[in-house]
Amino acid sequence: MTELAKLSASDRAALSLELEQRYNAFKAQGLKLDMTRGKPAPEQLDLASKLTVLLAESDYKGSDGSDARNYGGLDGLPEMKAIFAEMLGAPPAQVVVGGASSLTMMHDTVVRALLHGVPGGTEPWGRSKTKFICPVPGYDRHFAICEHHGIEMLSVALSDDGPDMAEVERLVASDPAIKGMWCVPKYSNPTGTTYSDAVVKRLAAMKTAAPDFRLFWDNAYAVHDLYETGDSLANVLTACAEAGNANRAIVFGSTSKISFAGAGVAALASSPANIADVKKHSGIQTIGPDKLNQLRHVRFFKDFAGVIAHMHKHAELLRPKFEAVIEAFEKELGGRGVATWTKPHGGYFISLDTLDGCAAEVVRLADAAGVKLTAAGATFPYGKDPRDRNIRVAPSMPPLTQVRTAMEVVAVCVLLASAKKLGA
Amino acid sequence: MTELAKLSASDRAALSLELEQRYNAFKAQGLKLDMTRGKPAPEQLDLASKLTVLLAESDYKGSDGSDARNYGGLDGLPEMKAIFAEMLGAPPAQVVVGGASSLTMMHDTVVRALLHGVPGGTEPWGRSKTKFICPVPGYDRHFAICEHHGIEMLSVALSDDGPDMAEVERLVASDPAIKGMWCVPKYSNPTGTTYSDAVVKRLAAMKTAAPDFRLFWDNAYAVHDLYETGDSLANVLTACAEAGNANRAIVFGSTSKISFAGAGVAALASSPANIADVKKHSGIQTIGPDKLNQLRHVRFFKDFAGVIAHMHKHAELLRPKFEAVIEAFEKELGGRGVATWTKPHGGYFISLDTLDGCAAEVVRLADAAGVKLTAAGATFPYGKDPRDRNIRVAPSMPPLTQVRTAMEVVAVCVLLASAKKLGA
Repeated sequence: MTELAKLSASDRAALSLELEQRYNAFKAQGLKLDMTRGKPAPEQLDLASKLTVLLAESDYKGSDGSDARNYGGLDGLPEMKAIFAEMLGAPPAQVVVGGASSLTMMHDTVVRALLHGVPGGTEPWGRSKTKFICPVPGYDRHFAICEHHGIEMLSVALSDDGPDMAEVERLVASDPAIKGMWCVPKYSNPTGTTYSDAVVKRLAAMKTAAPDFRLFWDNAYAVHDLYETGDSLANVLTACAEAGNANRAIVFGSTSKISFAGAGVAALASSPANIADVKKHSGIQTIGPDKLNQLRHVRFFKDFAGVIAHMHKHAELLRPKFEAVIEAFEKELGGRGVATWTKPHGGYFISLDTLDGCAAEVVRLADAAGVKLTAAGATFPYGKDPRDRNIRVAPSMPPLTQVRTAMEVVAVCVLLASAKKLGA
Repeated sequence: MTELAKLSASDRAALSLELEQRYNAFKAQGLKLDMTRGKPAPEQLDLASKLTVLLAESDYKGSDGSDARNYGGLDGLPEMKAIFAEMLGAPPAQVVVGGASSLTMMHDTVVRALLHGVPGGTEPWGRSKTKFICPVPGYDRHFAICEHHGIEMLSVALSDDGPDMAEVERLVASDPAIKGMWCVPKYSNPTGTTYSDAVVKRLAAMKTAAPDFRLFWDNAYAVHDLYETGDSLANVLTACAEAGNANRAIVFGSTSKISFAGAGVAALASSPANIADVKKHSGIQTIGPDKLNQLRHVRFFKDFAGVIAHMHKHAELLRPKFEAVIEAFEKELGGRGVATWTKPHGGYFISLDTLDGCAAEVVRLADAAGVKLTAAGATFPYGKDPRDRNIRVAPSMPPLTQVRTAMEVVAVCVLLASAKKLGA
């Protein structure tokens, strides 16, 4: 198809009229489609429905003899730690299992650092100005933690192989206030980018002005491949240790998008010094996480291979939705020169870039036609996309037919907004 | 029996010899009894064993239509909030259901205040010196939160009807650095004291130099009566509102000692302003707590009346253990003038006061004879009992016969240490 910008003014006006008609037809349907959040669909949750029923009344002992119904077990049941050890890439002794939410573990790790500092640091982060590097587009809940706690965010562009490392290296080398960096290193939210081995190595080895700099390695999509052959991600803990920066990375993960998003199990992994520090703090905050839910997960998945096998079932459900989004974009937007989009091999999102200055208008148009999208700007610190072009598409939750309809609506909105922008 | 102090030196020496023999006989038995922590016994946990199996695979919807397996529900399922509303004494809209641990909710409330302040305050608590009032003897995990976060603790004596209010009023009126006070208002840990209505009223109404003073009202034993007629506790939220200090109290509770200590449900209740503040912060920390576990609890207990009925079963198991402790103390220590002990109507602990300077020695002697007690001093801030006399006795976990034996050992140790102290 011809690029919108290359159409004559009259052709573009004619096209706009046609688009208006399609848009109004959608509007007349009274659609109510929600593409805002990366929630698993009910069918995905059904895959783990046995989780709620498989613990016999008499089945409450961990392999260490502990009664999972009673107090204790600060860092998790051994068999649960073993599964996360493989998922997060660390020995079991370097894993701490938490409650149901890795977001909470990340948040609390930031809060502890603000109040108490971290191993290798000289004072609590909260005593002075603290900054984090945020690859963009990125995950809004990461940015919300920083904004809430007054941590200044420095955006760095995410490319196909990870963040712009020259820029990251320049920033961390020069500014000791930069204490952390958010990373979703595999199937990044929202672009689906997986960091290359070279990027992981540079992140592990780069010189930081702050001696207590931390990579917040949110490996949320560690096993969330859409295809037989998933992207491969280098082990950041190994890379950091090899570079002499053993305490640099803290790796987070959960079963939220494996078992139940509201009732899974979360964990973190890091160096022995960081793990000792985490336990020192968490021993004040809790007597221990819910071990019965850990036991349920262990009985259901059995081991890490069981997790992987289970994820193949998720992929069967998710893949058609991702492909429907990309098909719709290619059909409607291909060759039009008004948008680009990612084609992830896993994760939960597709990232759509419109012409500069069009994202908010697309979201507005789609909303008016009954298709809710994540707010424009949400994928940037402070909710502000400087080019107003990025839209996060979350195809997991609605049924496939709805995804198709919603994406057709979105594509029409992109074309409409673009034509207007270009002068229709 | 004759008071030890009134025995002649030679009689005391004879008694000591006899006690030594009894002590050595215990020692020879190779006992291994643990009376350290307030953990429910396995038989108590068995009372709720249906909890792990009663959710059918298809039973995952809350009354609000939400899928308990998926993300969301920041403040809890409506039906779970309704149960806690009655337990904590607040309208459901003023309840926030958290994860499994009320300790975590208390800790996080302190941390949020340190970093962000609270409604009615002018700055984050962490910006200046912060102090808490700690009724003593009290709960070691409360004190650990303060110590860990650098909050200075001011001990105030706990009497039969609650903390020494004249002293509390004097302190809070004069020192704006006093921002909080720990209270276990019903069946206090470890004395079993329940605050009188007059004390609750004074706590609610007292003038505080700090405009943002908070009562951390840990109502851990709200429904944990040992007898048909339990102690009654005034509603602190109502009292605070009536006194014009609506934001003063934050009430915490959980099902840890109702369902499962490691896998229960926790909640807090407070004024609308405090609840809005909690949600503002917790919305950054989590997408929501484990709703499936809430649903399990709702299905099992059905309503608050179901909780009360369940607690009668706990009482049947706990009462004999409490009575065994008190019997042993009365039999061995009654009339000896070397110790006093509480006779709680509920809760999880009995508090034993020895002669000044004897508690650590009793714990040491008991430990050497195979009976582990909570460390002497644990019931005081910084682990330091200025009179070295308080010992927390936790009779819930061991079987009844072991409780009997352990208490006989402890009583002998008290007599031994006292005789030594008095000059045997």
